Amino acid sequence: MTNTLRTRVAIVGAGPAGLLLSHLLAASGIESVVIDSRTRDEIESTIRAGILEHGTVRVLDESGASDRVLTSGHRHDGIELRFEGEGHRIDFPSLTGRSVWLYPQHEVLKDLIAARLAGGQDLRFGVTAERIEDAETARPRVVASDADGTSLEIEADFVVGADGSRSIARAAVTGSSTGGYFREYPFAWFGILCEAPPSSEELIYSNSPNGFALISQRSATVQRMYFQCDPGADPHAPSEAELWDALQSRVPGTTLKEGRIFQRDVLRFRSFVAHELRRGRVALIGDAAHTVPPTGAKGMNLAIADVLLLEKALRALLEDGDERAIDAFPEKALRRIWKAQHFSWWMTSMLHVAPDASDFDRRRQVGELRSVVESEAGRTYLAEAYTGWPFED
Amino acid sequence: MTNTLRTRVAIVGAGPAGLLLSHLLAASGIESVVIDSRTRDEIESTIRAGILEHGTVRVLDESGASDRVLTSGHRHDGIELRFEGEGHRIDFPSLTGRSVWLYPQHEVLKDLIAARLAGGQDLRFGVTAERIEDAETARPRVVASDADGTSLEIEADFVVGADGSRSIARAAVTGSSTGGYFREYPFAWFGILCEAPPSSEELIYSNSPNGFALISQRSATVQRMYFQCDPGADPHAPSEAELWDALQSRVPGTTLKEGRIFQRDVLRFRSFVAHELRRGRVALIGDAAHTVPPTGAKGMNLAIADVLLLEKALRALLEDGDERAIDAFPEKALRRIWKAQHFSWWMTSMLHVAPDASDFDRRRQVGELRSVVESEAGRTYLAEAYTGWPFED
Repeated sequence: MTNTLRTRVAIVGAGPAGLLLSHLLAASGIESVVIDSRTRDEIESTIRAGILEHGTVRVLDESGASDRVLTSGHRHDGIELRFEGEGHRIDFPSLTGRSVWLYPQHEVLKDLIAARLAGGQDLRFGVTAERIEDAETARPRVVASDADGTSLEIEADFVVGADGSRSIARAAVTGSSTGGYFREYPFAWFGILCEAPPSSEELIYSNSPNGFALISQRSATVQRMYFQCDPGADPHAPSEAELWDALQSRVPGTTLKEGRIFQRDVLRFRSFVAHELRRGRVALIGDAAHTVPPTGAKGMNLAIADVLLLEKALRALLEDGDERAIDAFPEKALRRIWKAQHFSWWMTSMLHVAPDASDFDRRRQVGELRSVVESEAGRTYLAEAYTGWPFED
Repeated sequence: MTNTLRTRVAIVGAGPAGLLLSHLLAASGIESVVIDSRTRDEIESTIRAGILEHGTVRVLDESGASDRVLTSGHRHDGIELRFEGEGHRIDFPSLTGRSVWLYPQHEVLKDLIAARLAGGQDLRFGVTAERIEDAETARPRVVASDADGTSLEIEADFVVGADGSRSIARAAVTGSSTGGYFREYPFAWFGILCEAPPSSEELIYSNSPNGFALISQRSATVQRMYFQCDPGADPHAPSEAELWDALQSRVPGTTLKEGRIFQRDVLRFRSFVAHELRRGRVALIGDAAHTVPPTGAKGMNLAIADVLLLEKALRALLEDGDERAIDAFPEKALRRIWKAQHFSWWMTSMLHVAPDASDFDRRRQVGELRSVVESEAGRTYLAEAYTGWPFED
C-alpha cells in the first residue's frame, strides 16, 4: 500500500533549516509538508548549542519562529584569541556594531515544532525519505516510508533537501549521494561536557604548541570544552585527569575550573560543498548542501542564509511563476558558502597545529595571529565574518 | 701577508641594508667599514627594482641617504587584485593614509655608495669575507681576502652580516651556514623584461585557473612581468609567443601590451628565517637573516626595519655601553619578521595555484579573495601590511 500526499513544497528534514523554511513559507500562505526520520522526542531532546550570528537571531525573532534565543540564549560581545600564553579579545560591538548569541538549539527546535503544529501544518516524524524522483519535471516526488513500513509518496511543486550531512536528497541534485567538493583535516575535536562553573564568560579559542582548544559554555553549572585530537581517538580511553591535563595544557595562562565530566565525544570534521545546489524542482540547503568545520561557528548560520534565499525564490516561483530567483539561487548561495568555507578553513588552520607542521609553520602561525590581533582592521575582518556578513537580497 | 684593519663596526655586504646602516652610524659619529665581494660596477649596474613601504622611503629621504626614490621612483597608490576575470583595486591612501614607491634599487645604491665615499668612510669592493671569528668576545673579527688574494682581517667592536641569502656571516651566529626555519614552494616565477608601454598604471596581482601572474612596470618603455611556473622551468625554452600566451592567459579580462622580450629568468623562492639573529658581538640583518617570497614585496623593507632597530641598539652599546637594546634586538626584529613572513606566505598562497590544489582548494581561494575585496576591513588589513606597519622603537 502506498499513501500519496500532495503539497506545494515537500521538505525533507525537520532540523532548523527545514522547519524555518516551512515557517516562512506558511507566513506567505505557501503550504508545505516536512518529514523527518527521527521522532519528535529525539529531535527535541538532543542537547545541542551553537553560535548564532546577529542576522540569524533577528530572522528567528522577527519571523515569530522563536524568541528563545533572546530569552534563553546568551549574548556574546566577543571572543578571546589566545596564543603564546596571552589572551587577546576581539570586541564585536566596537568593531562591527554586532554581537552573536550562544543559543540552545533544542529549545529553538521545540518552538519551531510547536509553531508548525499550532499553525496546522503537516509535520511528520518517523518518516524516512528514500529518494526523490522526477526532479526535472513540474511534479517532483519524495518516496518515503512510515515508521510501520507503509510507503508514502509526497507529490509537490518543489522539493527541498534539508536532511543534513548524510542527505538522501543530494543524489537527486548532484547525481550521487557524495558528489561534492571536499577537504578533510588531519585532526578532530575531543569534546566534553562537565559540571563546573564557567572558566570564562566568553569563548576562548586557544592556539598552543600542544594544539588547539576551545573553552565554551552551556550554563552556570555546565560547560562544554574541546581540544584538538587525533581523528582516530577513542573518546572512552582517557581518564578524567588526563582530559583535564590535555585541556589545561592547551590554554596556557588560563586556569580552567574543573568538574565531573559526564559526556565525551570525538567530532571529526570536514569541509564539503555539493557539486550542485539545485536540479529542476529540487534544491539543497543546510548541511545537505555544505558542511564546515566547527571552528568558525558557521554551520547553522549558513543554513539560515540558504533558507532566506530559497524562501524568496520559491515565493517568486510558486506565486508568480517567476523562475529568475530560483535560477539565481545556487550562484547567490554559493557566494556566501565559499566565503564561509574560507572563514571556517582560516579559523581552523590559524588555530590548530597540523601534525606535519614544521617549525617554520608554527612560527608563521603565531605571526599570523599577531598580525590579526595587533590590527584593528584584522580584528574587524575576523569579527565581521564571525558575527555574520549581511544577508543578500 | 695579512693586512689588519681596526674599526668600530665591520659590515659584511654593500647592499641596501649594509650601506644604510653604515650611513646612519656615520651620522651618529660611529665609524664603520663595509666590504663586499662584488665590484662597485657590478653593484651599480645590476638593474633591480622593488616596492618600498611608506616608512622605508621616509627613512631613505630623511636620513639624506637617497632622495632618488622620490625623484626617480614612482608613487603607487594602490594595487589591483584580479580573479575570476575581474579586477578589484586596493586603494592605499583611503584605507591607510599611506602609499608605496616603485623604486630603482641601483640608483639608490649609487647614491648610498657616493654618500659613503664622499663622507670619507671605508667602503671596500672586491673583498670577500671568509668567516667571522671570536663572535662571543669584545673583539670579533672578519677574516677576508682582497681581489688579489691578500688576507685582510677586520677587528671591530661589532660585526654585522648584511651579506644576503648566501651569507657567510650566518655561520658565526647560528652555528651553520644554513641554520634556519624555512619553507619551500612548489612553484617559481618566470620573469621577463620587455620593451612595451605599461599595460597598467599599477601592479596587477592576478589569480587565474592557469596560475598567478604579476604585471609590473619599470618605465614608460620597459615593463616587468612574471607568471607562475614550475621551479625547474628553463628560462630559454619558451618562444616569445609562448611567453605572451602564458602571461595573457593568466590575466583574463586584461589585454597586455606586448613588445620585444629582452630578458628572461626563473626566480625560485623560499621562506627562511635564521635560527638566531645575534650571537655575542655579531648580528644578521636583511637577507642574511631572512628571505621572503616576493609576492608580498617585503624583502627590502624588512631589511630596512632591521637596520633601524640594529642602529639604535649599536648606538646604545657603543656610545653608552648599554646592552639592553642589543639584547632585545632579536626578539623585536623577529616580531616584524614573522608578521612579514606570514604576509608573504599569505599573498603567495592566496594568489598562486598549488600544483596539488583540489577543486575545493581553488574555490575556497576565490572565496578568500572575495572576502578580502568585499570588506573594507579586509582591504585595509592587506593594505596596512603592504604599505608597511609602523617601525618599532
